[in-house]
Amino acid sequence: MRFRVTPHDSSFFDIMAETADCLVRGSALLVQILNADMKDRKELAAKLHEVENEADGFTHKLYQKLNQTFVTPLDRDDLYLLASNMDDCMDYMDEAGDLIVLYKIGELPKRVVAQVNVLQRCAELTAEAAPRLRSMDSLRDYWVEINRLENEADREYRRLLADLFEKEDDPKRIIKLKDIITSLERGVDAFERLANAVETIAVKES
Amino acid sequence: MRFRVTPHDSSFFDIMAETADCLVRGSALLVQILNADMKDRKELAAKLHEVENEADGFTHKLYQKLNQTFVTPLDRDDLYLLASNMDDCMDYMDEAGDLIVLYKIGELPKRVVAQVNVLQRCAELTAEAAPRLRSMDSLRDYWVEINRLENEADREYRRLLADLFEKEDDPKRIIKLKDIITSLERGVDAFERLANAVETIAVKES
Amino acid sequence: MRFRVTPHDSSFFDIMAETADCLVRGSALLVQILNADMKDRKELAAKLHEVENEADGFTHKLYQKLNQTFVTPLDRDDLYLLASNMDDCMDYMDEAGDLIVLYKIGELPKRVVAQVNVLQRCAELTAEAAPRLRSMDSLRDYWVEINRLENEADREYRRLLADLFEKEDDPKRIIKLKDIITSLERGVDAFERLANAVETIAVKES
Repeated sequence: MRFRVTPHDSSFFDIMAETADCLVRGSALLVQILNADMKDRKELAAKLHEVENEADGFTHKLYQKLNQTFVTPLDRDDLYLLASNMDDCMDYMDEAGDLIVLYKIGELPKRVVAQVNVLQRCAELTAEAAPRLRSMDSLRDYWVEINRLENEADREYRRLLADLFEKEDDPKRIIKLKDIITSLERGVDAFERLANAVETIAVKES
Repeated sequence: MRFRVTPHDSSFFDIMAETADCLVRGSALLVQILNADMKDRKELAAKLHEVENEADGFTHKLYQKLNQTFVTPLDRDDLYLLASNMDDCMDYMDEAGDLIVLYKIGELPKRVVAQVNVLQRCAELTAEAAPRLRSMDSLRDYWVEINRLENEADREYRRLLADLFEKEDDPKRIIKLKDIITSLERGVDAFERLANAVETIAVKES
Repeated sequence: MRFRVTPHDSSFFDIMAETADCLVRGSALLVQILNADMKDRKELAAKLHEVENEADGFTHKLYQKLNQTFVTPLDRDDLYLLASNMDDCMDYMDEAGDLIVLYKIGELPKRVVAQVNVLQRCAELTAEAAPRLRSMDSLRDYWVEINRLENEADREYRRLLADLFEKEDDPKRIIKLKDIITSLERGVDAFERLANAVETIAVKES
């Protein structure tokens, strides 16, 4: 097992902790967007997009550091995988917020609230787990819970999809809602891929 | 060329053969789903999902083995690529079966049957080829035939897409059918990516 | 820094220059498709598809060379990444041209022309930058400009998407146009990923 605790090594994890913090703030903004009216939604989506840019900055910083560092605290590919998965989580949340505004969708089905609550919980769990990436210890609860949440979100998504065609009649609204709930579903999937990547790396490093 | 035939090395290929067997059983269930009525479709899709879970178990087992094995029979990345491509094949077949039930789609256009028959043939060819992955010998016919089938499926898919907008008038049905035939098309594409990965690895190892 | 200028090494870059030339010819055909009538569109899309096949041939050639070469002018993974990103650029342009014909879409919104002009500019910039990949020098302007163009294209895409639901009433036409503009948007995204890959590699090699 490689020697870890040097300021140099640790900063990879500091950057990931910063990105995880963006995920938490982004998911909180997504919750606000659901409960806001059209006018406020636009401002909140703009804020969400700022957070997404901030996260991009951290990802970019991490990639550059990866390319300039000879000895990395985890395998280069593993650090790359963690960063790109975090990037996906952020992108799908940003996309969902963006579509809600762009499509002027108005009120959203109750189940969409459940989807977004799962996203927020995933982001919080990821931020809580981030400091433990350094030692790759005691991460089991994190990935088990994320997988449980993803299964729950998947059931909600499937019910939403079925309801969409049974309860909605306006094709435009069906197309719009389908895009939004699919972005949210992909967001949760991205959190699961991130958790699975963490599990795989933890097993390897143990 | 690395030494291959040790029980230890071989078991990577045993796991892939098990996964390929899941692909064959999954594609057979998909054929049954097309010909079944709504009630039976639900049960068959549940069975298909069980097969998909089984395949996931094998993929997970292979990844863990990859992370715990120092000397692998093929490059680590190549084994990873083969496993993740097999996983995609299964996921798209499962998704298609799932959507057929979820969307209560009723009768499907004839050409969808052709798409699914191609999927089944791809799965069978993959299972037949799996034992030859160990030696990476005489795999040419396999990838040539898969590529031929993918071209055939692609033509069917494009005709289906054109027909969809010419023959169907209900937007809901158009959206639903488009999702289903696209999942099937992606399934065939995944089998092609798998075959292309096998070709690339075979060339490298030769 | 590895020694570069040997005929053997250089030919990787020759193949990429050939592929970049296909991107330029493909994007020019896409521009022609927009301005053509239904009948000519079909012929032009067939030509575009030939160019796509040609590009596939170069990508395949590069992968095979990668697998048969021991010392590569850039990291194996980086050459693979550049080639697969170029392949994506071509595929999305081909898909867009194909859908325009397949969907018998008739006249396209003005903003689609702007999207395709950006694609053509991206292809030209990529071809101009290709010879500089050998030395990885003076590529900054290239990736900065591609990123600027992608942001511009993204704004056009979002306006197109909003207009689609505000100005169009035929659900079929909405679904068709959404597919076409999304393929074009993904094409521009692929050029951005290619430029970002070049940046990452240049930083690493510097």
